Amino acid sequence: MNLDGLYSELTLEMKAKLVLVVLDGLGDLATREQGYLTPLEAASTPNLDALAQDAAQGRMIPVAPGITPGSGPGHLGLFGYDPLEFQVGRGVIEALGLGLTLKAGDVAARANFCTLDAKGIVTDRRAGRIETSVCEELCALLSKKVKKVGDAEVIIKAGKGHRFVVIFRGKGLEGPLSDADPHRDGAPIPKVEAVDKKSAKANKAAKLVAEFYKAALPVLAKKRPANGFLMRGIAHQPAIPSFVERYRLRPACIAVYPMYKGLAQLVGMAKLEGPQTIAEQFERYLTEYDNYDYFFIHYKYTDMHGEDGNFEAKKRAIEEFDAALPILLQKRPDVLAITGDHSTPCALRGHSWHPQPVLLTSECSGSDKLERFTETGANLGSLGLFEAKYLVRQMQANAKMFDKFGA
Amino acid sequence: MNLDGLYSELTLEMKAKLVLVVLDGLGDLATREQGYLTPLEAASTPNLDALAQDAAQGRMIPVAPGITPGSGPGHLGLFGYDPLEFQVGRGVIEALGLGLTLKAGDVAARANFCTLDAKGIVTDRRAGRIETSVCEELCALLSKKVKKVGDAEVIIKAGKGHRFVVIFRGKGLEGPLSDADPHRDGAPIPKVEAVDKKSAKANKAAKLVAEFYKAALPVLAKKRPANGFLMRGIAHQPAIPSFVERYRLRPACIAVYPMYKGLAQLVGMAKLEGPQTIAEQFERYLTEYDNYDYFFIHYKYTDMHGEDGNFEAKKRAIEEFDAALPILLQKRPDVLAITGDHSTPCALRGHSWHPQPVLLTSECSGSDKLERFTETGANLGSLGLFEAKYLVRQMQANAKMFDKFGA
Repeated sequence: MNLDGLYSELTLEMKAKLVLVVLDGLGDLATREQGYLTPLEAASTPNLDALAQDAAQGRMIPVAPGITPGSGPGHLGLFGYDPLEFQVGRGVIEALGLGLTLKAGDVAARANFCTLDAKGIVTDRRAGRIETSVCEELCALLSKKVKKVGDAEVIIKAGKGHRFVVIFRGKGLEGPLSDADPHRDGAPIPKVEAVDKKSAKANKAAKLVAEFYKAALPVLAKKRPANGFLMRGIAHQPAIPSFVERYRLRPACIAVYPMYKGLAQLVGMAKLEGPQTIAEQFERYLTEYDNYDYFFIHYKYTDMHGEDGNFEAKKRAIEEFDAALPILLQKRPDVLAITGDHSTPCALRGHSWHPQPVLLTSECSGSDKLERFTETGANLGSLGLFEAKYLVRQMQANAKMFDKFGA
Repeated sequence: MNLDGLYSELTLEMKAKLVLVVLDGLGDLATREQGYLTPLEAASTPNLDALAQDAAQGRMIPVAPGITPGSGPGHLGLFGYDPLEFQVGRGVIEALGLGLTLKAGDVAARANFCTLDAKGIVTDRRAGRIETSVCEELCALLSKKVKKVGDAEVIIKAGKGHRFVVIFRGKGLEGPLSDADPHRDGAPIPKVEAVDKKSAKANKAAKLVAEFYKAALPVLAKKRPANGFLMRGIAHQPAIPSFVERYRLRPACIAVYPMYKGLAQLVGMAKLEGPQTIAEQFERYLTEYDNYDYFFIHYKYTDMHGEDGNFEAKKRAIEEFDAALPILLQKRPDVLAITGDHSTPCALRGHSWHPQPVLLTSECSGSDKLERFTETGANLGSLGLFEAKYLVRQMQANAKMFDKFGA
């Protein structure tokens, strides 16, 4: 029997409050340089420590052993969707990150400006890393000149530096398509093709991309250095079973950065806009407490400082988070899970595959008798090492949402 | 390659003694109320402690993360049968629990008396929770009046209160069928149908159930309050590969309660009847030592007291078990595993999904250097957190029953 099917069959109709707090990129490594302490271990966290007393801990594999996830797979896993089964194209992720709202069937591409020579050969894949303001101007120009290709609407939005996003909104489209990117200088832009040649919808999308190039390249012809563009990760927004259907919980997202709101929206979470600080996010949780059953609260700064390799700043970000935690606890949910979507070790200055620590507290979590919430302590916890996609199931179980299996 | 196929291929023909001791519902939670000790941690267990010195420990997921198993899936997992692959209907489990011996192809239903109004609407799904003695009288009456339907023999046995079991023993029958139970008051008894409409055998079984209702309801027509009955979990005894075939071990069960004997019988274990106390069960093991290779010894009271939320009684049950353990150890088997079929935390007063601790000792178990056998200690053990269905494979490996895989 299919396991998701079993979970669904056993799910009881009931009222419960579940809260998932994600400190992005929380997990880290203990290294000699930092006295063998991780930022979480070095930080002063009296409020997390108090929670640890009555909590279970463990570590979670974001996707599979050794696999470093981007934010997309990292969060889909946390939301209980197998990141290998539910793959979201980079174009879609990028669009979500820019705050665009996608519709079912939209095909999105991650694009960037490049430099082409007279023969159409790519001479600089990043067009000399143009300024964001230049990118914005060029995108505005393209938007004005190319509003439609075939029967599809074209939506263009500038990102940072040379990066932008193109969305094709039409009928009967799907991805994935091959990249319009030679992935090296010195070659022409390859023609885009449907990955599944038998898909009429993907063939149609590939044709639209070709038409887009035909219309857009002349617009840029006289620009320097950005007289061309590359497109990658071209795919449609996949059909993902909605969170409320799958878990019988009304979900809401309290995030600051567009990417995470977008990922939450992808599974049907309500986006609660406004809060900018973690304290404000927790305040918002308090005011919305009665309106939802499941809250996803996202804290970005642990990841950001990890990416910069800034140990002290990551440690301070954790301390700021800890200081705000009592606000959340004014309305203690039935189940509270605190974790990361992956590790972002300062020593590696980027996402990694190292299992992130997780703390879970509820009336039936029991106590692992750990005095703090740390990577090293989590290794000893009763939750063990498990795939992140099971976290939501553990949370549901802790909310007593599952009927017994078999007699 | 199929993993079960690999295990089977690597299994060597040899003599070894393996003992699985199940303290039903052993696993528990450390909570503030009990000074952060589980019953196993609070109990005085000198004999288990002595075993721990030369044992490996770990924790087992009974079925899947967050899933709370009934006794059926719990034990099938311990016997090495994936509880998701080998599902046993509630009717069959109930029949086994009442000590009935099922034959292959028997279709069993969990039934209970109910009250119907003049129009056949269910007004009380439990017939006012009649006494067991009334249930026994009504079952005797039904047994006398309805011995056969179609070409199938009907076997009826009373359970506790308003509960009973009906078995249809005929040719070419199978389940599962839909329930003859509206699952609420105020509705009529629904007609039973085959879950798989294309199964001729299930359609035949559904027809027999309808005929049974036709014959049985008039017998009860004048009885009050039990003038009707509902049937649920109607299914046949599934075909399960026998234990001896699968593991090349001659298995025997030393249990007191019918349910566990029934589950053991389902996989072809010999039932060694007679013993009532754990000391007697261990004595019986000593006398039968030469006759079997694998002994399943079941101790019920840990679960029973966990269900009652009686921490002290569960603790004492563990101490009684521990006191009897030296009897078993008079003939130390090659491999001894001590565990539960699931957790039954006192704080939850019922089965739960929390991984149960397991202790495994053999000449090649090594030592995890743990001084006791406890939930918290088991978190640190070398067996880690694993699915219960692999326990028998760990036991076989510890008996050196597996050849090397590959060169």
